[in-house]
Amino acid sequence: MSGVMELLPLEQVAFEGMIDVIRREFERFGYLPIATPAMELTEVLLRKTGGETERQVYLVQSTGSAEQGDDPDLALRFDLTVPLARYVAEHEHQLSFPFRRHQIQPVYRGERPQRGRYREFYQCDIDVIDRNELSLRFDAEIPAVINSVFAALDFGEFVIRLNSRRLLAGLMEKLEIEPHVAALRELDRLDRQGPENVIASLSKIGVTNDAAQRLLELAATGLRTGSDAFTLLDEIGGDNDLLKQGVDEMRAVLTLVREWGVPEHRFGLDLSIARGLDYYTGTVYETTLVAHPELGSICSGGRYDDLAGQYTKSRLPGVGISIGLSRLFWQLQNADLLPAAKSTVEVLVGLLDDAGLPEALRIAAELRDAGVNTESVLVPDRIGNQLKFAAKNGIDLYVVAGENERQRGEVLVRNLRTQTQASADRKDVVAAVQAQ
Amino acid sequence: MSGVMELLPLEQVAFEGMIDVIRREFERFGYLPIATPAMELTEVLLRKTGGETERQVYLVQSTGSAEQGDDPDLALRFDLTVPLARYVAEHEHQLSFPFRRHQIQPVYRGERPQRGRYREFYQCDIDVIDRNELSLRFDAEIPAVINSVFAALDFGEFVIRLNSRRLLAGLMEKLEIEPHVAALRELDRLDRQGPENVIASLSKIGVTNDAAQRLLELAATGLRTGSDAFTLLDEIGGDNDLLKQGVDEMRAVLTLVREWGVPEHRFGLDLSIARGLDYYTGTVYETTLVAHPELGSICSGGRYDDLAGQYTKSRLPGVGISIGLSRLFWQLQNADLLPAAKSTVEVLVGLLDDAGLPEALRIAAELRDAGVNTESVLVPDRIGNQLKFAAKNGIDLYVVAGENERQRGEVLVRNLRTQTQASADRKDVVAAVQAQ
Repeated sequence: MSGVMELLPLEQVAFEGMIDVIRREFERFGYLPIATPAMELTEVLLRKTGGETERQVYLVQSTGSAEQGDDPDLALRFDLTVPLARYVAEHEHQLSFPFRRHQIQPVYRGERPQRGRYREFYQCDIDVIDRNELSLRFDAEIPAVINSVFAALDFGEFVIRLNSRRLLAGLMEKLEIEPHVAALRELDRLDRQGPENVIASLSKIGVTNDAAQRLLELAATGLRTGSDAFTLLDEIGGDNDLLKQGVDEMRAVLTLVREWGVPEHRFGLDLSIARGLDYYTGTVYETTLVAHPELGSICSGGRYDDLAGQYTKSRLPGVGISIGLSRLFWQLQNADLLPAAKSTVEVLVGLLDDAGLPEALRIAAELRDAGVNTESVLVPDRIGNQLKFAAKNGIDLYVVAGENERQRGEVLVRNLRTQTQASADRKDVVAAVQAQ
Repeated sequence: MSGVMELLPLEQVAFEGMIDVIRREFERFGYLPIATPAMELTEVLLRKTGGETERQVYLVQSTGSAEQGDDPDLALRFDLTVPLARYVAEHEHQLSFPFRRHQIQPVYRGERPQRGRYREFYQCDIDVIDRNELSLRFDAEIPAVINSVFAALDFGEFVIRLNSRRLLAGLMEKLEIEPHVAALRELDRLDRQGPENVIASLSKIGVTNDAAQRLLELAATGLRTGSDAFTLLDEIGGDNDLLKQGVDEMRAVLTLVREWGVPEHRFGLDLSIARGLDYYTGTVYETTLVAHPELGSICSGGRYDDLAGQYTKSRLPGVGISIGLSRLFWQLQNADLLPAAKSTVEVLVGLLDDAGLPEALRIAAELRDAGVNTESVLVPDRIGNQLKFAAKNGIDLYVVAGENERQRGEVLVRNLRTQTQASADRKDVVAAVQAQ
């Protein structure tokens, strides 16, 4: 089936290892897990959008209901933000605010399949939601989480690029560019389309060539880290209220990110970051690998004024980010940045003769009791074949008690990584394995 | 939305805790993770069945495709066995056999919602698949895994009931009951329907009253553990080849389960276990909680001759079990068998004044670096409100450095579980928390 990611077992081990790390770091910062059903009511999912996303939604209907000629009233989630909005609105009075939640689940889009773009793909999201007001201090917590996640994932140096939609709106007001949101969307396409195409698109929505040029000059300042970011903010100044507010907020956020302990080279101000989604209103984030800018942003998000206006009268401002994990995994695999495939199996306990089965089962049980993931060979075979099985399946250790070993009260422990082997006392098998 | 399970955050923590334990124990025995897409091609999913399941399948179609008037060519998986069959057939030449896999994913059925029956529910499956032949020894590994899983889940004593479809078929041949499979399905309904209804149903498929009575008498022997199981097998004897083979196999499996180290009171022979599914051919399993037989089987499965005959010419025998986790979670919750809700958050670092923010952020960062899941209060509030937040959200520890503590170079550590608090040197905050 095209357009979906299906992994072989050792790839799946690597993928789940990434999920485990992401979840661990999310929870390290106090984000609580939630999971929402894959299916939502159609009226909930399609309330917001219009346009391209709506055409890509997967409708769901049971065969029984289809036979009766009913219209589908269910659809698969296409992101984790709409389900979060519905969840918070539905359970508002049972939740505590500020509500920090993480959610790691697949989402579904009926896109034309492309390389690395899937119809089912995992998103790993965190958001903090509060009622009525959400302090700007949360905008600075988000980069601290991103920093911990990507430091732990260990794919090389990365940098978190911050910007402010309010600051950008202020800049556009200064440059007399209207309407803001359409122009922001064009700016977001800058790295994919190049400056000339963006200037052409901007001119179509009424932006003068001169204003477009000046906007792109500012965007071209690129990433500014450390004190350079604050110097740039000073230069931008505050010609109008929006701009002044945006600059002040950005200054406060960057100051706080430093206090959260994020290393200075890992974050900065980048005026070209706009994010395409309409609902962002303040701080926006993108994250890139320093050695692999061609991968684009591997973790993005922003601040929004009101999460769930469609579903509740409560005003629920929030800030959050999303990691598109399936795509990232595909990119890392293609760029050869994933470590060598390792199994969850740590030891293969071999079997050379039927008479050895009870002893082999006891050895395996002792290893498992000691917390060692252990696979048992249950049908005797040549040792060469068993070692081949271990090697092919990324299992590092092979333990066996053949007839000779059993007579001597020993076991043989072979390390496939170091290509060494040694005998050990039968009673010390756990220690011998743990010493490898 | 009715008929789906959606949990509050602390319930989700408990649910994911169960998944973590199940996955850990599956991997302890060398079962490798796989995940298949929620959507399969309709022609793949509907190739096998017919009847009730087919009416309950969820068809999937993108809005774009629906507008064009196309028929849906995708559907949501309704179990993990059909996707496993397709997966093994598709990747056969990249897999190593015997192939032990686990799969923990939601499945979808368009059932009429009932209490504890969901339209989306998690299944946790393991299977071992081999090519051409699969040794009976694997039938004995399965109860060893079940034993480890439910011992680790710690919901009280449980017992694994084994039986053999081959033995049952032999018994039916002896009792001149035909056709076997239909009669097996009736026998499987015994505990829900009662003996009289089953005798009536059996008579409809041509089973004489006398034969039905004798079959139910055998089923009524109930669970036999330890040497009682072997005595019963001796009594059954071997009047025909099928019966003799079934009895011999059952004897071998029960002997091996003991050698795998499963305690004698945790498994036995129960002639009433039949399992409803057509494809089981040998050993079948059910698992019940000793103190809660009303929950029914919480883990069931069996041996089958050929997993993927629809998708490949290779003969792929296997044996496996499934835990219906969403239903089990609902049952345990209703029977009050779940432990009290605990958060993934271990420490809440409080904030009493704006000037204390940098110090509060440093304390939280030190705790996180030490591996402690720590949530930060970012906006100052009365200490009473912060303690209420911690208590409501299942957070056991509260750490704060107010103005007085900061002047004295101290922190306050409050344990909400023991209702005690103590001051500690600021530099010892990690140790003070870890000592709780």
